[in-house]
Amino acid sequence: MTHHTNLSNIGVIGLGVMGKNLALNIADNGYHVAVFDLDTAKVNAALEQEHQERKAGLAPRMQACNNLSEMLDKLVSPKVIVLSVPAGSIVDGICNTLIESGINSEDIVIDTGNSLWTDTVEREAHYQGKFKFFSSAVSGGEVGARFGPSLMPSGDESAWQYVAPIWNAIAAKVDSKTGLPIERFEPGNPVTEGEPCTTYIGPAGSGHYVKMVHNGIEYADMQLICEAYQLLHDGIGLSTYDIGDIFKRWNQGSLNSYLMGISAEVLQQKDPLTDKPLVEMILDKAGQKGTGLWTAVSSLQIGCPAPTIAEAVYARAISTQKSLRVSLSNTLMGPQKATLTEAEKTDFINALEDALYCAKVCCYAQGFQLMAMEAKEQNWTLNFAEIAKIWRAGCIIRATFLQSITQAYVENPQLANLLMAESFSSALAAKQLNWRKTVAASVMQGIPAPCIASAVAYYDSYRCETLPANLLQGQRDFFGAHTFERTDKPAGEKYHLDWSAKVRTLVKM
Amino acid sequence: MTHHTNLSNIGVIGLGVMGKNLALNIADNGYHVAVFDLDTAKVNAALEQEHQERKAGLAPRMQACNNLSEMLDKLVSPKVIVLSVPAGSIVDGICNTLIESGINSEDIVIDTGNSLWTDTVEREAHYQGKFKFFSSAVSGGEVGARFGPSLMPSGDESAWQYVAPIWNAIAAKVDSKTGLPIERFEPGNPVTEGEPCTTYIGPAGSGHYVKMVHNGIEYADMQLICEAYQLLHDGIGLSTYDIGDIFKRWNQGSLNSYLMGISAEVLQQKDPLTDKPLVEMILDKAGQKGTGLWTAVSSLQIGCPAPTIAEAVYARAISTQKSLRVSLSNTLMGPQKATLTEAEKTDFINALEDALYCAKVCCYAQGFQLMAMEAKEQNWTLNFAEIAKIWRAGCIIRATFLQSITQAYVENPQLANLLMAESFSSALAAKQLNWRKTVAASVMQGIPAPCIASAVAYYDSYRCETLPANLLQGQRDFFGAHTFERTDKPAGEKYHLDWSAKVRTLVKM
Repeated sequence: MTHHTNLSNIGVIGLGVMGKNLALNIADNGYHVAVFDLDTAKVNAALEQEHQERKAGLAPRMQACNNLSEMLDKLVSPKVIVLSVPAGSIVDGICNTLIESGINSEDIVIDTGNSLWTDTVEREAHYQGKFKFFSSAVSGGEVGARFGPSLMPSGDESAWQYVAPIWNAIAAKVDSKTGLPIERFEPGNPVTEGEPCTTYIGPAGSGHYVKMVHNGIEYADMQLICEAYQLLHDGIGLSTYDIGDIFKRWNQGSLNSYLMGISAEVLQQKDPLTDKPLVEMILDKAGQKGTGLWTAVSSLQIGCPAPTIAEAVYARAISTQKSLRVSLSNTLMGPQKATLTEAEKTDFINALEDALYCAKVCCYAQGFQLMAMEAKEQNWTLNFAEIAKIWRAGCIIRATFLQSITQAYVENPQLANLLMAESFSSALAAKQLNWRKTVAASVMQGIPAPCIASAVAYYDSYRCETLPANLLQGQRDFFGAHTFERTDKPAGEKYHLDWSAKVRTLVKM
Repeated sequence: MTHHTNLSNIGVIGLGVMGKNLALNIADNGYHVAVFDLDTAKVNAALEQEHQERKAGLAPRMQACNNLSEMLDKLVSPKVIVLSVPAGSIVDGICNTLIESGINSEDIVIDTGNSLWTDTVEREAHYQGKFKFFSSAVSGGEVGARFGPSLMPSGDESAWQYVAPIWNAIAAKVDSKTGLPIERFEPGNPVTEGEPCTTYIGPAGSGHYVKMVHNGIEYADMQLICEAYQLLHDGIGLSTYDIGDIFKRWNQGSLNSYLMGISAEVLQQKDPLTDKPLVEMILDKAGQKGTGLWTAVSSLQIGCPAPTIAEAVYARAISTQKSLRVSLSNTLMGPQKATLTEAEKTDFINALEDALYCAKVCCYAQGFQLMAMEAKEQNWTLNFAEIAKIWRAGCIIRATFLQSITQAYVENPQLANLLMAESFSSALAAKQLNWRKTVAASVMQGIPAPCIASAVAYYDSYRCETLPANLLQGQRDFFGAHTFERTDKPAGEKYHLDWSAKVRTLVKM
């Protein structure tokens, strides 16, 4: 990096939790950062935190700006400016102020918010000639932003050469031998070794699309873990803390993941107010911010089956309808409670571990296939091995498991569905019986497991050379003359049976 | 109706299958109809069909128009014009031509196409002052349009008084005592007795929204029947014709419906080319036209659980991926095939009948709850008893079953979910064990039943006073500081645990 007196390498606009932590992360990596927020208290807090964390003798690397034209004056050219502001019209408000403040056509603005990907596509076109509108989704929450997030940049390729060194520096890192995250959460001591969790995703919008699908997978993965918790709690009556122990053990095996790890921690957390397990005091109404439902909506619109992701979104919706559930829990009949022996309980726990793994494979398969189908539609060339790689650290769905996905796409970049990869199909073959037993048991015991169950149906649907859609096409032709193709005729030839005639004849349309 | 010399009571623009049949239906009911289509061959075909079907001695009731200003000249005032044209920009093209041709602000244009409901809302506002833009969804396919469809009109209430007599006349009719359709498909001899299957739905767009949900339910209902077919075919090895027999029998019981009836007919249809069952020669790739996916998208956006409808949309999507399925059918392992005794087969068939009923209740519950939630959002006052009533005949999802839904909403118009109605909860209580057995068997046998299974999870989720969303909120607070509510504190109070601190403290936000 170069540093002219008083000039910064990069600007950060918006110093909420994410923006402030990104700025501190960038500064930790040796860059000088000009920062701005409409709220000067946030500016002061950021500078103060840098001051607190700074090692004795080191000069500060962050400088405050009073407005955007001052920020432009304080940056080396081409100026690189990171936006960390809420998605929506605020982004355009700032872009317009930057134009009024004299931003140059070679300068670069990086939107790191959770923008809807189609907005990003429109913005890149809209600001062309004024400046380079670039975007980079960020995953990893506040800790990720501070010490190493997973970054999904997309847009103008000529902008990427200026952004890349900074992005490579601040991204989470993976040990190239083990594929595991290198985690060191120390201010002033960033992780500089290992493979950075960022890669240029593709044209404008593609990075945000990939991040959206990441979040869709995250919804499903979280819900799968929740279903396992309920099955162990309501199904075999384990205590919350004991379930935490089981999750800890699972986290040592093929289910190893950030989400499994934190779930174990959450389950074992005592509530400071009541001394009961904290989880039992948390209200069971789940919030959501939209990316999960956007993923499900996208999958429906493009015709990519993603039922496990959609079920996870619906599970959150049902959770919010608490009073309806309380009322229905008194009216709707369930099965008789079975009593299990200790040996049966152990079998159940082991089967559930396999079921969770199988369902997890299916939800990743859904997410990756969705990205592939949208990429085809949008003419993006996505590198799925690289995408799996940059999700191995920094982001919420980081998991050992992503190393196998990386491998599958390295071996076959054109993989139509992860289920086609030998490593996954053989793992599922070995575990499928336990998966089935888990779903059957959950249904017979009356404990909902919508995601685990939907994944079995997904898997079995793909196992069918013939699906009953032949009857469905017959129904559609009967009531709506929608026509059908025949198995013994060339694809594309449409036939209709004259269903309302006395003697029904087949007509080639 | 009044009839001035040469003046017609109503105009019909667009003489495709639906428009022509609506025009013939209106004429059958004594109205004089001015018709127009850009394609004069279609105009001639419509007039010719009326001529063919006309009883000796009766004067024709249809007259052709050469253009839209001629149509306006040939109508009594206020002029009522039915559009039966493809959804989209064509609708606006015709509206603008009508304005240029001198349509009056008191005149009425009724869009009967499959327009997206939000377009309808915009159009009503857009054409205000020029004419009254009214809309009416039509269900029932070509036969329905000809002899009695289910009609879902919405928009300007002052327009409805002119439309109502015609709509009541041409709609399908239900025997008020039995609740069953009165079906008489005879040209020149319309059904004039019974309750008409039309009712004013509400403000602009609401009729098309209700129709959209009707179609979403239709998708799910069709898929449920297809799953039953596959379970009987692949699961216990019954022949296609034998399955048709079973469906015929089921159609005499609580599963009685138009779709069940035609499914039996389709299954028993011999292929004219090969003499095999026709269904076995139909390619198993299902088409779709959008209303099912719009319903699922709407449910996700508004946060109404409708997993069974979404699964039906995904099932169609998977069906189109035939080559992927063929390939995966060779790679993915399934369970060992079980051999059933005759007694076990009989049990399986009986259980499946119950399962189908239970799943069907859930998919209607999802559709009706979705309408209720959207109505609240849009400030529509929908009368669900009336909506259920007008679906009892004419439309694709007509079923005996709708009589019970009508009854449930008559008893409690504010029903939050159909599962709350005693008639349904008690029926499900009696059948739930068989439903569970069916799902467990399908999973253990490796036959996909995504809709039947998703409905069980839906039912069981509502039975849970506590869902594992408490753990989910804990996860979200851990990685994203999203906060949670507590069961022992007032609703709305947000708490956050300082997860990354050495000593974790609870903070009230």
